[in-house]
Amino acid sequence: MTLRVTVWNENVHETTEPEIMPHYPEGIHGALASGLRELLGDGVAVTTATLDEPEHGLTDAVLASTDVLVWWGHLAHDRVSDEVVDRVQRQVLGGMGLVVLHSGHFSKIFTRLMGTTCSLRWRDDGDRELVYTVAPHHPITAGVPHPIVIPAHETYGEFFDIPAPDELVFVSGFSGGEVFRSGAAYRRGNGRVFYFSPGDQKYPVYTQPEIRRVIANACEWARRVGDSVPFAAKVEKGWMLRP
Amino acid sequence: MTLRVTVWNENVHETTEPEIMPHYPEGIHGALASGLRELLGDGVAVTTATLDEPEHGLTDAVLASTDVLVWWGHLAHDRVSDEVVDRVQRQVLGGMGLVVLHSGHFSKIFTRLMGTTCSLRWRDDGDRELVYTVAPHHPITAGVPHPIVIPAHETYGEFFDIPAPDELVFVSGFSGGEVFRSGAAYRRGNGRVFYFSPGDQKYPVYTQPEIRRVIANACEWARRVGDSVPFAAKVEKGWMLRP
Amino acid sequence: MTLRVTVWNENVHETTEPEIMPHYPEGIHGALASGLRELLGDGVAVTTATLDEPEHGLTDAVLASTDVLVWWGHLAHDRVSDEVVDRVQRQVLGGMGLVVLHSGHFSKIFTRLMGTTCSLRWRDDGDRELVYTVAPHHPITAGVPHPIVIPAHETYGEFFDIPAPDELVFVSGFSGGEVFRSGAAYRRGNGRVFYFSPGDQKYPVYTQPEIRRVIANACEWARRVGDSVPFAAKVEKGWMLRP
Amino acid sequence: MTLRVTVWNENVHETTEPEIMPHYPEGIHGALASGLRELLGDGVAVTTATLDEPEHGLTDAVLASTDVLVWWGHLAHDRVSDEVVDRVQRQVLGGMGLVVLHSGHFSKIFTRLMGTTCSLRWRDDGDRELVYTVAPHHPITAGVPHPIVIPAHETYGEFFDIPAPDELVFVSGFSGGEVFRSGAAYRRGNGRVFYFSPGDQKYPVYTQPEIRRVIANACEWARRVGDSVPFAAKVEKGWMLRP
Repeated sequence: MTLRVTVWNENVHETTEPEIMPHYPEGIHGALASGLRELLGDGVAVTTATLDEPEHGLTDAVLASTDVLVWWGHLAHDRVSDEVVDRVQRQVLGGMGLVVLHSGHFSKIFTRLMGTTCSLRWRDDGDRELVYTVAPHHPITAGVPHPIVIPAHETYGEFFDIPAPDELVFVSGFSGGEVFRSGAAYRRGNGRVFYFSPGDQKYPVYTQPEIRRVIANACEWARRVGDSVPFAAKVEKGWMLRP
Repeated sequence: MTLRVTVWNENVHETTEPEIMPHYPEGIHGALASGLRELLGDGVAVTTATLDEPEHGLTDAVLASTDVLVWWGHLAHDRVSDEVVDRVQRQVLGGMGLVVLHSGHFSKIFTRLMGTTCSLRWRDDGDRELVYTVAPHHPITAGVPHPIVIPAHETYGEFFDIPAPDELVFVSGFSGGEVFRSGAAYRRGNGRVFYFSPGDQKYPVYTQPEIRRVIANACEWARRVGDSVPFAAKVEKGWMLRP
Repeated sequence: MTLRVTVWNENVHETTEPEIMPHYPEGIHGALASGLRELLGDGVAVTTATLDEPEHGLTDAVLASTDVLVWWGHLAHDRVSDEVVDRVQRQVLGGMGLVVLHSGHFSKIFTRLMGTTCSLRWRDDGDRELVYTVAPHHPITAGVPHPIVIPAHETYGEFFDIPAPDELVFVSGFSGGEVFRSGAAYRRGNGRVFYFSPGDQKYPVYTQPEIRRVIANACEWARRVGDSVPFAAKVEKGWMLRP
Repeated sequence: MTLRVTVWNENVHETTEPEIMPHYPEGIHGALASGLRELLGDGVAVTTATLDEPEHGLTDAVLASTDVLVWWGHLAHDRVSDEVVDRVQRQVLGGMGLVVLHSGHFSKIFTRLMGTTCSLRWRDDGDRELVYTVAPHHPITAGVPHPIVIPAHETYGEFFDIPAPDELVFVSGFSGGEVFRSGAAYRRGNGRVFYFSPGDQKYPVYTQPEIRRVIANACEWARRVGDSVPFAAKVEKGWMLRP
């Protein structure tokens, strides 16, 4: 069955400082969408949505027909309306997958699902990042080299203030000495959440085949499994024994 | 070192429908405080705070000198101000312990730290609850019988929409057939959180010695370990190698 | 791709005390195989193996062409040769799935993969067992009622001495008051292991459609993901940067 | 209460190739014992045991009066008798703590408790190792700098074939680019197990104050909590309701 992915991007770097990301002529969302289409082909239907669209492009109708939402944000987390965040959270708890990328660690939706600050240490010196698999059985790692070599990237370092992942999938090391839990899988309600820390707007990380592979795998892994948010229910004694 | 515990209670049942809880003449907070003093003696300094106090009794000063906050709420979750919830969350992430009891599963602070609905199934037929230890190595279970027998109680049943606990400590079974993950330990930021589902306002659960033991153990386990919320930091290359 | 399942059964009750299990005229392995064929149809190729076959029917060749091994044993754990257990363990670590049923909790292969005693409390009074889902997002729960009602069954109770599951999927409650972590998922090496506690030889549990559904789901979930046991390797500095 | 620690060392490098470890004139066990005494003072009673003693110095009596066993082995894992390994495993499951160091990842006792190969990648080029805390709330990290800088050390790299830790405490990065889950906490039966990957016999790691701090903290964390191995028990219906 076709996997319906919506790639969301704040699209602010692209529209306000396009000179810093010449490698993403179609925007980060465009590059992510291309990667998914390239790897998943007919198995995927990708659409994109951005901050400046009405309701940020994430209406009830869009979300209801989304199996996996991919999220990229950085400068404009605060401009995402709480109403849309509520809506996305409910969709995740109801079974929609969510793949949060890079600076999305500080997005409203990710911090809300985690309950922690999601803060980290960072610097940008173009370090080489090596992304190691620590869960080789995990479907997100299928076909992924050990390690992935990202020639130059922004550095994210520990301590990364997240709940202990349900499954820690990747750990990165940077040439300047930092380490980072770069791939972390969670289940929340009926939904699945994957955080993956590559790639910064300044580096062409989302054109790299191995990174595209991880994100495509993550979308398949996080595929929607239902559309019902867990709810409180008063029951009658013996309810479970009645037909 | 003295463990400083603040017991917070919304104190609404007690003040609006006292006839339903004759077993708690000093309020639920009073009973919880008595239990802690009884078991921890000189090792603990217990204070209480309630919804109707200014800032719900949870000022910055109170929280800064609290090692563990015990939380009981039911009817008035919505009346807890978001500002106080922000404050409590930051204290937990900075290292304060939090012990959430019973209907506190739906409190703002617990759902915020969990990121899920924390919904469950319930009914009130005075079932017998058996609280089994599934983590006998855990300090919260020290001196606790296997199982604890609660002669009559409200029933909570699965599915309980929480993240998979970092440590599942207790599982309860009810005479009507439900099961429930009744003791769940989490770490968030630098702090520790323990959810324990006994006891409802209608039943004298907090006067039961075994239940008091669990809550005293939980307070000791959740003891504050710091007072610094994890924060984002831009670093310089090689920071970790400098004295 | 066809899922290749090998159902292993010690086949001792069937051959020595057939009167106690008239509901399994083809043996427990026969019933399990029928259930898998019924639910997975052309998607599965099921074979069976038993203790009395040479090498217990689990030769290198058989295991190498097995995606998932289903294990049922009870009276004869000690008669399983250590050499075969070594072989099965290596296959699991290399990526073969393993589904351990009921009294298999005490099998050599399960205790070896767990590292604990895997002991539990039990009694046989024909209690009703209710199997509740505590991980509704998990693929093993797809299409499974909440709870499954097993009208009469042997009782298994906590404490069950297993490592904390990587994913706790089911918790059972028994009419006599016990609770039990009845569905527990693990990853070991490249392989996946699922323990599911229903069903005893005296009760026709493996003819019950909901139970068959769980086992079929578990086989799909545990599908082999590789055939390479993790191994120690001395590397050269910079190995990860060379093509 | 005094913490009773037994430091076990195979003591083979020391007795067969003493020239390679001039920094450990009293043996690795001697250095570890000194570190514990230095940091825990009157709170600890440390004894040592080595491979060549009768029963490797780990008699029933010694283990029964040991709260935490620290394990260092490398060349002689195979010379440890299975009977002693059985005994140590039972003590751990009964509540004794176990702290496994460095090349002990391949010891019989550790692989048996893990159920996996515990294999890893390694090289010895004197890399700088940085040991980062990823669980700042964990008592093992109390007073430990972030990161610990080990100026020169053997390199251990992923994939490390262990079960997902119950708590991942440290992640190391090496100057040559590897990363490694260097501090991993487990619970098995009633006991606690901590694996910590520093330090190789060629480097004076166990004289480094920060490393000594981690090991002392680990011993305190793993303190014995009982002396009863979980066991199978047939029960009578209603056992839990009888006084």
